Amino acid sequence: MTYFLLGSTYVIRLDAGERIVETLRGLCERDAIGGGFFNGLGAVGEAEIGHFDPAANDYGWTVLSGPYEIVSLYGNITTVDGRPFIHAHIALGDNTFAVKGGHLREAVVSVTCEVTLTRFRDDIGRRKDEGTGLLKLALEPGGD
Amino acid sequence: MTYFLLGSTYVIRLDAGERIVETLRGLCERDAIGGGFFNGLGAVGEAEIGHFDPAANDYGWTVLSGPYEIVSLYGNITTVDGRPFIHAHIALGDNTFAVKGGHLREAVVSVTCEVTLTRFRDDIGRRKDEGTGLLKLALEPGGD
Amino acid sequence: MTYFLLGSTYVIRLDAGERIVETLRGLCERDAIGGGFFNGLGAVGEAEIGHFDPAANDYGWTVLSGPYEIVSLYGNITTVDGRPFIHAHIALGDNTFAVKGGHLREAVVSVTCEVTLTRFRDDIGRRKDEGTGLLKLALEPGGD
Repeated sequence: MTYFLLGSTYVIRLDAGERIVETLRGLCERDAIGGGFFNGLGAVGEAEIGHFDPAANDYGWTVLSGPYEIVSLYGNITTVDGRPFIHAHIALGDNTFAVKGGHLREAVVSVTCEVTLTRFRDDIGRRKDEGTGLLKLALEPGGD
Repeated sequence: MTYFLLGSTYVIRLDAGERIVETLRGLCERDAIGGGFFNGLGAVGEAEIGHFDPAANDYGWTVLSGPYEIVSLYGNITTVDGRPFIHAHIALGDNTFAVKGGHLREAVVSVTCEVTLTRFRDDIGRRKDEGTGLLKLALEPGGD
Repeated sequence: MTYFLLGSTYVIRLDAGERIVETLRGLCERDAIGGGFFNGLGAVGEAEIGHFDPAANDYGWTVLSGPYEIVSLYGNITTVDGRPFIHAHIALGDNTFAVKGGHLREAVVSVTCEVTLTRFRDDIGRRKDEGTGLLKLALEPGGD
């Protein structure tokens, strides 16, 4: 992974074999990024994505084997117990141009992945929701 | 809905039962946001999306019943007759990870929805296009 | 094409018949934009999208005939040999709300296309990768 920082925006290149979520989290840990958001494109091989079923209060997961184009990738950066946390959703296109998508657990870059990530000055926290057990954004109403 | 404002970017959490378009428009009305853009992720139940048919010069609509992951969500904020207007497109993933998408009329949050919204200092207007009847961006050429 | 510039962000409207990649590249050439990123929505007619096959080390291409909604569009701006270069991926929704997507070679606007594009102060270069022949981001590790 290499990057270039312009103001508060990182331009990031992930290379073949790198795991997207793990690599972005590693960058956030190293640079103490506790709030921000990103978009990306590129291509991946294996990817694991999830779909949350509110009735079962649980995720269903699938492992997909590419090659896939990253048709879209958007995520945010927050902190959980003081450490960076990546929440991202992804759409993946196969060689028939059909698209599958959901919550991104992890994906391995096949050729390249290009991400623009804007960091905030402040951290954004995330806290376990009692009802669902999910980690939800912990925001102060109307804060500035 | 709760949010945290960092510089010109809002980090927004919408909660179960909230309508995405209505809630974002309400925030824009309250904070007098007349220009900006946003990305989001999360999960929704019922959603209504449209597809514009240029031949018929009209939208076709469908109501989808989730649960869906919001695979992608991008929109912009403008004003129509001085009031905030939300224009957004969305991709939704079901429990087989198949994706449907189009113009977002409205969608109801099922679990959570997380949005990063950047506001502009100035308003961006939108005006009815005589040919199609659609509300198109009213931009001055080369303006600054 | 018309646009409005707010700080470092362009709000752009492309009109029926305009080619998205060509038009954005033309704006970047004219305004000397050598680094940035954008998101968009709108509707297109004909579009050509690709899928990279790492085994063959080549793209497969398809030409799609709309009308399509632009369900998502994200890209970045870099320079190749000193000239602006657009790299974008797109998801397209048809009148059944099915979605196809991949690497965007070109697409022709049918009704309108609305893009928010943020430019960087500095250029971001792109260089041919010896292994794949692809133009990859040329970033200095850890640069600021």
